Amino acid sequence: MRSFRKELWYNIPARRAFINITPQVEECLRESGVREGIVLVNAMHITASVFINDDESGLHRDYDAWLERLAPHEPVSQYQHNRTGEDNGDAHLKRQVMGREVVVAITNGRLDFGPWEQIFYGEFDGGRKKRVLIKIIGE
Amino acid sequence: MRSFRKELWYNIPARRAFINITPQVEECLRESGVREGIVLVNAMHITASVFINDDESGLHRDYDAWLERLAPHEPVSQYQHNRTGEDNGDAHLKRQVMGREVVVAITNGRLDFGPWEQIFYGEFDGGRKKRVLIKIIGE
Amino acid sequence: MRSFRKELWYNIPARRAFINITPQVEECLRESGVREGIVLVNAMHITASVFINDDESGLHRDYDAWLERLAPHEPVSQYQHNRTGEDNGDAHLKRQVMGREVVVAITNGRLDFGPWEQIFYGEFDGGRKKRVLIKIIGE
Repeated sequence: MRSFRKELWYNIPARRAFINITPQVEECLRESGVREGIVLVNAMHITASVFINDDESGLHRDYDAWLERLAPHEPVSQYQHNRTGEDNGDAHLKRQVMGREVVVAITNGRLDFGPWEQIFYGEFDGGRKKRVLIKIIGE
Repeated sequence: MRSFRKELWYNIPARRAFINITPQVEECLRESGVREGIVLVNAMHITASVFINDDESGLHRDYDAWLERLAPHEPVSQYQHNRTGEDNGDAHLKRQVMGREVVVAITNGRLDFGPWEQIFYGEFDGGRKKRVLIKIIGE
Repeated sequence: MRSFRKELWYNIPARRAFINITPQVEECLRESGVREGIVLVNAMHITASVFINDDESGLHRDYDAWLERLAPHEPVSQYQHNRTGEDNGDAHLKRQVMGREVVVAITNGRLDFGPWEQIFYGEFDGGRKKRVLIKIIGE
């Protein structure tokens, strides 16, 4: 069994953003030499997500508006978590809706994707250095 | 390490539906000959889900009504994504709540499930041909 | 390839609770002897979750209040699932928001975690014996 590990670092200036990280995952897959197996891609921070969906800017604005309705940033006093001095209570909730991780099949050395699948990093509490973990296992 | 791959194809006439695909996954597991490992089951399309829950029709109607409250189909103009000519903005949101994929343990050649766990394909934008990917790795 | 399996049993007296199970997963990892691979941790029951977030009690109260807004327990008659004699329709919905499972990378014999990542069992229908499955594969 082969394994491969890499961290991607981000420091997003905006509070919230969606970044297509598919090219970075594909590059890791090439580096790994794995032909059959799986790749795990996960946010290493708890106010961020990794998820798979469409690379369409209107959809990303829909996600942002929808997540703000489900778990609004303000008033920050509505979250007990913010009594710790943070203002990111909402980000911990948004991240649960969008998910922490994706697991993608590797077949013949490629991400085994449907036609529109793309991997995104979802930031919900920007302005901090954060990491995404890519872990590949297989042969 | 052994690996096994199969696609399941669906073309659901209704806009939304939940289909129990556990028997198909179990059949793949038998075909694969894997006794210890994991199976990844994921929607290859971004307006559909694969998830694990109970095979109870009342619950499925509850899921449908709840997802419609969280992310209503109409008015379709409420989603910027629909300016692309689609009317499935809601389906991209519903899929995030229900999830893209499940990873299930394989132990002694069987899906290592609790008493009520069943795997479902969740369709949120039917009337199109779509695929589910089953990828098994192990020994 | 090595594999390791263990069940954790819980019987939570409260209807809802979040339990940090990271120490138990780390102990399994040590027992397994796996240095490179992945660990799957999943609820074996369909009204419970396994998820990764922060071990902060204010946040856990925020999660509880938020999930009650998204899918209230009462009136129990609002869920068709409860016509089966159950009163846990809400718990099946809450579990979908928080997720069934996590997959964590194993690197150098340790859970490959960011600074705040902790694994939780989320109970949404307590007073019953329930299990969490830990499955490790790797080398």
